[in-house]
Amino acid sequence: MRITMAHGSGGQETEQLIRDVFAAAFDNRFQREMEDAAAVPGAQRLAVTTDSFVVRPLFFPGGDIGKLSVCGTVNDLLMRGAVPQYLTCGFIIEEGTESAILESVTASMAETAAEAGVLIVAGDTKVVERAHEDGGIIINTAGVGFLREDTEISASQIVPGDKVILSGSLGEHHAAILSARMGMQNAILSDVAQLTEPVSILLGAGIHVHAMRDVTRGGLATILHEFAARSGLTFVLSEKEIPVSDMVRDFCGILGLDPLMMGNEGKFVAAIAGEDAEEALHLLKGTACGKDASIIGEARPREDVPVIMETPIGGERVISPLVGEGLPRIC
Amino acid sequence: MRITMAHGSGGQETEQLIRDVFAAAFDNRFQREMEDAAAVPGAQRLAVTTDSFVVRPLFFPGGDIGKLSVCGTVNDLLMRGAVPQYLTCGFIIEEGTESAILESVTASMAETAAEAGVLIVAGDTKVVERAHEDGGIIINTAGVGFLREDTEISASQIVPGDKVILSGSLGEHHAAILSARMGMQNAILSDVAQLTEPVSILLGAGIHVHAMRDVTRGGLATILHEFAARSGLTFVLSEKEIPVSDMVRDFCGILGLDPLMMGNEGKFVAAIAGEDAEEALHLLKGTACGKDASIIGEARPREDVPVIMETPIGGERVISPLVGEGLPRIC
Repeated sequence: MRITMAHGSGGQETEQLIRDVFAAAFDNRFQREMEDAAAVPGAQRLAVTTDSFVVRPLFFPGGDIGKLSVCGTVNDLLMRGAVPQYLTCGFIIEEGTESAILESVTASMAETAAEAGVLIVAGDTKVVERAHEDGGIIINTAGVGFLREDTEISASQIVPGDKVILSGSLGEHHAAILSARMGMQNAILSDVAQLTEPVSILLGAGIHVHAMRDVTRGGLATILHEFAARSGLTFVLSEKEIPVSDMVRDFCGILGLDPLMMGNEGKFVAAIAGEDAEEALHLLKGTACGKDASIIGEARPREDVPVIMETPIGGERVISPLVGEGLPRIC
Repeated sequence: MRITMAHGSGGQETEQLIRDVFAAAFDNRFQREMEDAAAVPGAQRLAVTTDSFVVRPLFFPGGDIGKLSVCGTVNDLLMRGAVPQYLTCGFIIEEGTESAILESVTASMAETAAEAGVLIVAGDTKVVERAHEDGGIIINTAGVGFLREDTEISASQIVPGDKVILSGSLGEHHAAILSARMGMQNAILSDVAQLTEPVSILLGAGIHVHAMRDVTRGGLATILHEFAARSGLTFVLSEKEIPVSDMVRDFCGILGLDPLMMGNEGKFVAAIAGEDAEEALHLLKGTACGKDASIIGEARPREDVPVIMETPIGGERVISPLVGEGLPRIC
């Protein structure tokens, strides 16, 4: 079956699509109510976030837009120290899209949501004119998480002496999407993953995490500039400590890309109290997606520039945030 | 300035766009943190919802996509008996869109959010290829509201004897959008409005509201079919009690449209305990958007068909839900 404008009418076809595809994939007692809003248990402090996903191709080495749309929003909640609870999803579907594509995407969303322990409680569907020959899907997810009373994880909490820890190697998602678009043959897989395990292990062990960000669009360089702007500090990185796989390094060498500017979808960077850094590193290395975790630098009182890289031969270079296009539509 | 792909990169241009347009329009202490998720006060029970807005044209008689995107989600929360609190917004912007359009839309969102007493606490921006000559914007809003402990407003709560009250006349939004697209000269304005006032007056007065829905895509006919399916009851309407303005009635007559199938953006239908119906009607008629409110029918034990209309000449006709396209992209 192909999606038609009638599936976006709000009438019988919309109801059928919701019942056959979305409700079937995301079944739970809250969305089963089918009211204008889902009624769910709350908490005294909440984390709230949203992200839209416009990646093309919809299916790529290592993942798909469905998995990405759940991981992206779950990770944004985790980065604030919240326990992710509820997702909403808004589907913008191009007329002519095969419903089998939609079913595959929703199955992937449901599987990832179950892994992350979140419920998809509300949704919306719109249909727009065809813009691509094989149709297309844009997904917005918004997320609600519960925040512990005593947690304040924010770039404003970073202090001099904090260590900067990166949870794994840079660039896989960006390189996988670019390879898929260019038809390049390589074994690079997107790193798309939900980060529930490593974050809950760090916080559960009482590690003093001052700030966290998942390393997506804009790359590590852009995040460290945001950290610097919010904290008023300078970040000094050690180039040799920044993990990049051989495959991604070769890929970047050929195309002239900088892994510091590349998007990832299953990596995060944390500013952690200096005295906790070694323990945090040890804990991260024991997780499924943290074996390449590394202490890549530290926060210092503000110097002339916000982000500095120490090179392996003893020099220093200034790191800028991403300027210009990067790679559009990677997430 | 025109939006470019670089505004969706996640780097410096994205940050400028967020700062100059979104943060400037939606300023509040929660979004000012600029973290991956906003940390906000919570409550023991929450209502959660989402809606995407793909209307074209972006500006139409009586409103624009910005006002619509706030009203739609605020209204969905209100329909569950919740007090709307927080919105997230995801912008999907076509490359080439004038930033002045975006500024006008965000100003409209900010004004409407302030009227409704909600804070826009988190956002996201993506840029996609141009699909329309003058660019385009799609907006997703998700909403979180606080639910009273003792409130359970849901179609499953409707009982025989409940009266069906409609808050105003049907079809204005649908007719306004269609007129704008067809270049028709008339004075019909979209009814787009947030329904905080009438809903809080009803609930504040202790009226026993069993179910509410805002009458959007799919129209009144589709909602009554949903009410019937969820409650297991039959709804009997009186045609002469259903308010339709002369302008909309003439418009529908010319084009062969049925006001029962048309979308509105500032009207709701409620199933209210029979003994409270007259008081509810009186209260609604005293509100800014409720002067044409009317008791249009009642819920009865299940009969042969789910929705029946009594005609002014004493006959009966069966009402079907919307089937087919209706009018695409009206919200």
